[in-house]
Amino acid sequence: MWPGDPAGAHDLSDVERAAAATLSPEVWDFIAGGSGRERSLDANREAFDRIFVASRVLRDVSACTTDATLLNRPVRMPVAVAPVAYHRLAHPEGELATARAAKTAGVPFTVATLSSVPVEEVTAVGGSVWFQLYWLRERRRSLDLARRAEDAGCEALMLTVDVPWMGRRLRDVRNGFALPGHVRAVHLDGGAASTAHRSPASGGSAVAAHTAQAFSPAVTWSCVEELRAATRLPLVVKGVLAPEDAVRAAGLGVDAVVVSNHGGRQLDGALPGIEALPEVAEAVGGACEVWVDGGIRSGTDVLKALASGADGVLVGRPPVWGLAAGGESGVRQVLDLLAAELRDALGLAGCAGVGAARELRTVRPAREPRRA
Amino acid sequence: MWPGDPAGAHDLSDVERAAAATLSPEVWDFIAGGSGRERSLDANREAFDRIFVASRVLRDVSACTTDATLLNRPVRMPVAVAPVAYHRLAHPEGELATARAAKTAGVPFTVATLSSVPVEEVTAVGGSVWFQLYWLRERRRSLDLARRAEDAGCEALMLTVDVPWMGRRLRDVRNGFALPGHVRAVHLDGGAASTAHRSPASGGSAVAAHTAQAFSPAVTWSCVEELRAATRLPLVVKGVLAPEDAVRAAGLGVDAVVVSNHGGRQLDGALPGIEALPEVAEAVGGACEVWVDGGIRSGTDVLKALASGADGVLVGRPPVWGLAAGGESGVRQVLDLLAAELRDALGLAGCAGVGAARELRTVRPAREPRRA
Amino acid sequence: MWPGDPAGAHDLSDVERAAAATLSPEVWDFIAGGSGRERSLDANREAFDRIFVASRVLRDVSACTTDATLLNRPVRMPVAVAPVAYHRLAHPEGELATARAAKTAGVPFTVATLSSVPVEEVTAVGGSVWFQLYWLRERRRSLDLARRAEDAGCEALMLTVDVPWMGRRLRDVRNGFALPGHVRAVHLDGGAASTAHRSPASGGSAVAAHTAQAFSPAVTWSCVEELRAATRLPLVVKGVLAPEDAVRAAGLGVDAVVVSNHGGRQLDGALPGIEALPEVAEAVGGACEVWVDGGIRSGTDVLKALASGADGVLVGRPPVWGLAAGGESGVRQVLDLLAAELRDALGLAGCAGVGAARELRTVRPAREPRRA
Amino acid sequence: MWPGDPAGAHDLSDVERAAAATLSPEVWDFIAGGSGRERSLDANREAFDRIFVASRVLRDVSACTTDATLLNRPVRMPVAVAPVAYHRLAHPEGELATARAAKTAGVPFTVATLSSVPVEEVTAVGGSVWFQLYWLRERRRSLDLARRAEDAGCEALMLTVDVPWMGRRLRDVRNGFALPGHVRAVHLDGGAASTAHRSPASGGSAVAAHTAQAFSPAVTWSCVEELRAATRLPLVVKGVLAPEDAVRAAGLGVDAVVVSNHGGRQLDGALPGIEALPEVAEAVGGACEVWVDGGIRSGTDVLKALASGADGVLVGRPPVWGLAAGGESGVRQVLDLLAAELRDALGLAGCAGVGAARELRTVRPAREPRRA
Repeated sequence: MWPGDPAGAHDLSDVERAAAATLSPEVWDFIAGGSGRERSLDANREAFDRIFVASRVLRDVSACTTDATLLNRPVRMPVAVAPVAYHRLAHPEGELATARAAKTAGVPFTVATLSSVPVEEVTAVGGSVWFQLYWLRERRRSLDLARRAEDAGCEALMLTVDVPWMGRRLRDVRNGFALPGHVRAVHLDGGAASTAHRSPASGGSAVAAHTAQAFSPAVTWSCVEELRAATRLPLVVKGVLAPEDAVRAAGLGVDAVVVSNHGGRQLDGALPGIEALPEVAEAVGGACEVWVDGGIRSGTDVLKALASGADGVLVGRPPVWGLAAGGESGVRQVLDLLAAELRDALGLAGCAGVGAARELRTVRPAREPRRA
Repeated sequence: MWPGDPAGAHDLSDVERAAAATLSPEVWDFIAGGSGRERSLDANREAFDRIFVASRVLRDVSACTTDATLLNRPVRMPVAVAPVAYHRLAHPEGELATARAAKTAGVPFTVATLSSVPVEEVTAVGGSVWFQLYWLRERRRSLDLARRAEDAGCEALMLTVDVPWMGRRLRDVRNGFALPGHVRAVHLDGGAASTAHRSPASGGSAVAAHTAQAFSPAVTWSCVEELRAATRLPLVVKGVLAPEDAVRAAGLGVDAVVVSNHGGRQLDGALPGIEALPEVAEAVGGACEVWVDGGIRSGTDVLKALASGADGVLVGRPPVWGLAAGGESGVRQVLDLLAAELRDALGLAGCAGVGAARELRTVRPAREPRRA
Repeated sequence: MWPGDPAGAHDLSDVERAAAATLSPEVWDFIAGGSGRERSLDANREAFDRIFVASRVLRDVSACTTDATLLNRPVRMPVAVAPVAYHRLAHPEGELATARAAKTAGVPFTVATLSSVPVEEVTAVGGSVWFQLYWLRERRRSLDLARRAEDAGCEALMLTVDVPWMGRRLRDVRNGFALPGHVRAVHLDGGAASTAHRSPASGGSAVAAHTAQAFSPAVTWSCVEELRAATRLPLVVKGVLAPEDAVRAAGLGVDAVVVSNHGGRQLDGALPGIEALPEVAEAVGGACEVWVDGGIRSGTDVLKALASGADGVLVGRPPVWGLAAGGESGVRQVLDLLAAELRDALGLAGCAGVGAARELRTVRPAREPRRA
Repeated sequence: MWPGDPAGAHDLSDVERAAAATLSPEVWDFIAGGSGRERSLDANREAFDRIFVASRVLRDVSACTTDATLLNRPVRMPVAVAPVAYHRLAHPEGELATARAAKTAGVPFTVATLSSVPVEEVTAVGGSVWFQLYWLRERRRSLDLARRAEDAGCEALMLTVDVPWMGRRLRDVRNGFALPGHVRAVHLDGGAASTAHRSPASGGSAVAAHTAQAFSPAVTWSCVEELRAATRLPLVVKGVLAPEDAVRAAGLGVDAVVVSNHGGRQLDGALPGIEALPEVAEAVGGACEVWVDGGIRSGTDVLKALASGADGVLVGRPPVWGLAAGGESGVRQVLDLLAAELRDALGLAGCAGVGAARELRTVRPAREPRRA
């Protein structure tokens, strides 16, 4: 039985249940919840369940492999650990445990601006580590943070562009969620307690208040240009849904865009990434890599993403479930399950590798777009 | 906890629950119910939940504002309080409390023909007050009422055109709903008891019987022309669903049309306003303002309406929930929540203002129209 | 409370509940059930619930009327009582009570081949009476029956063409349903007991066995021609779904076709009439009247049928519910409710009459047809 | 009541319930389960329930027959028993009982590579017997097995092409499912115990482990060519979903393709066969026969398959339900029910035979394909 025996988890829902049983309700809500009525959160999952794939057959899959490249570097599978704040909420070892598992599993790990462990300690783990950047109210600090990540050995910078401020996550608001004392935004506040640790007198989410204090709602395309000029690292822009925005990013020399509604945590009602993906991929036309996240809970979901036009995917909540339920080995179990499931799905779909998956035909419910 | 502490409501569903707990079942049914099998009532909500928005990113939203104009006058947000009958059913202060809250919140308040407080007392509150007109069986009284509203200082007239008579609201029929003695249609009956206060001997809704007595089922486009000629106030026509009707209204000099199925209370099976909106807006092409109502329960819903082509929205039941649960401060809480949610939604969608929201792309389930 | 006080029923679901409480489970199942998994039965209702109408406004509906013609004769509303077998299952007075109510309500009543009261007794009631014909194994008896109906004063003949044999109605099969001794197919068996009264030794529905004995599975278009030549009465063909069949019927001089899946009782999986209607009406192009049945439970449903291209509708189960729950007055209540609801729906949709309803625009979920 | 009296089952769901009550939970799960989240398993059924047929009328169906040909040989109906592993799991007589029932019912029976009874014993039963081939890791053994089947008197070879390895069937994995000692893959392991009988030390499905040992994931189109050259028997390729693959098979001289997602047991998320069918049939254009399987649970489903372009269908689980519940007579009951239901459906749809069924028009929900 899992946890205790990580091999006992047979799909990610086993890990999810184990995490839910481990964490306090408030922390579980912070991780699991979405914004508003959670329509985007639910739609992320529903969208995957309504996509079907026309498998191909009679193609030798004996050497089927999930090997891929992300940002022109080899990865064990086209999956990376998404930036997620405060891993120490889930486990005392926090980002260190997750990064170790990602390294062993052969997938990139993204350190968040809101990491609870300093980036230098994470890169010391080894493996491919990326750094996720929120543009801060003080422009200088943003660039300093980017430089610090580069100096620490991060291999890519990922600018999150869909958080001018935090969405209205009503679970946190109702819980008056605040960080416990031992968990801190080390890149922003160092060792000091912050707004994130005190429920606002007026009620609501302390984490949201802290974010509002730190992040800039004035982040624009010029910040992308500035960042592009300031670093030689590959640059990823995370959080686009409109084809025009993806095309513009590619035009500015961005190496990858992540089609995403931020796990249903920002605009409630934002289109699921997987639904926006086909048009974005078509518009970008290979000018940069196109990744997707939101709702990926199995290797089959990764296959559906590839078949819908993605070059790669990010997974956010599942590694944190693994972390909560089993520390490093729990995360490893999550990533190994995904790799095994993806290999299985590739082979069953007649694809010897991820390239072939992008040629698969998908079928989904008809939608009516309204172009403004 | 809300009510008691208005700040305790985190979204409109909190207010709805508080109102349901406060009001008698009969009054709750009168406010909440729809006609027939309540298909249109339910569809109004379902339609919003199935619309998704492709957010834009990297546009400076630090000065994000909900400021807008309605009928060329500045409003705090493109939202007005819809005409709703008999506010005193919900709270002893009735329309006075609602109008005060609307004034403070910076949004227009619409006095209904079936107001339980005289229009002059409402306009005395100040703020932007509009008057909703039902065309009465006696043409002269309709025009007198319009004149009275204008004299009282109302800033716009809103002619409701989808009530030749009241729809079959089965909750009221089964409840034999009649007005309590202290609530009266002061513009029609003065201080006198009326049909609306006595359950019909044959059963059914006293309010429907009263309406049938008072309203004209012979209201036509010539009434719009007559009203247009009789007043210099902006004129709004509420209750259109067919593009042809909206175009015709604009051609007669109407300043705004409200795309609406009357909150699911008139024809059961009438198309939700939000579903009719895109074609109406396209057909009108800016010849007048196009508003929508029906099912708007959050700032995200307002955003979806704007993205679907609306210049503004009306909210009907939510302010009455606030009124029932907390009087003036309850209404204020509802309007403040909407404004805060709308600002949040705008910013998260990459819109610094309501104009940008109209450029957003939406996705909804495919429909098959049959044109006669 | 209804029954007891027919005025106590506020919509047809009230009557349905009363009937279900009155009838034995076996008889209820015979009336309510469909064939197979009852997919067509359920889809008949679901289809109506997913159609929405774009109401029109500002058209004088003070003289709104449901008056119409069916087969060029005036009717109170474009609704007729569909042929239903064995009314005496529901009430001792059987078809006599139903016919009396239809006469008073001003709508045509259709006597079924499987009537439990002789056609001559029904026509003696007066009103507009039609006769429904199943083509029998003995061609001569079919024509004799048609002649008998004509001689009795029936005003139209309705040939049902979707019953080469009875569908697999599993409720009846599981119940081993057989007619009670006092209910007989008087046109076929006179006063004698028949197969319909004895559960087959091998189990199953006695009524189905009886039907198989009597009806011809060899009925073809030549029977329509023969019948057309044999009578001067208007001729209706009931049970078409394919546009080609409707066009062919019209070409043979048929006066009306009924688009129908036989209330979900024949082919399980047959398209609901209301879904087949728009294409059939368009194909027929006015060459004959086009009616629809299946799932009509309110005046709003009648409106949706008209707006989808129907000239009229049949209602089958609802009058039988009325009959079971309240005899003649129960049926009357059902028909009066429908008329009141239809007038209400017409007026609220901006239609002064049924002609205008056919010009309304409808919206329904997108479908993908496959043409063979 | 069924079982005990096979005539007591009125549709296949009766048989399914009887089987579920008879078998151990582990064996039931092995038969009933699908892979992953069982989305494809569920979608197979949902797809049929959302297809509707426009019946035709007035065509003589008195001589309605289900007679058809499959592979140019006469069959009682266009239905064959699909290959299913290990019938002795369901009943001690295993494949012998099923084959006897199929013979009596006049439909082909497919012996699986994973049969629990040797093919020679099955062909000794008589009737039309086909042999299903998995391409084995040792190419020579595959061809030997094909030859053995041909020598035994099998009338067709069916190469299953969607199992490079077994899908992740989580029910079996969680159950640690292994074959009981008396059930063996006699064509692969002779009388010896095998991997299939021992739950892996690491947990999981023994059957999957055994399959992985035996089957080749390197099966390609050249194997089809080799097999085509090696036998004069008709050759069927089972498990295609993409039109291109079906066209290619036909081009290589294959006599029939089976459009299938393997009963939802291989790629979870694979398109249901019935949804892929129309495009496949159109692309093949008669160059070979096109069959479908997955979710067929009634004669109406067979009709829908024919109307969607199929020349024939396979049924897998239902005969095994019959076998579990009643041995040979249970299987016979299943096949007789299907034949009776299909004849019923044909006649009610106005089709005197299966050829006419292919001309029927179907309606289904709109889908949005993405072509890579």
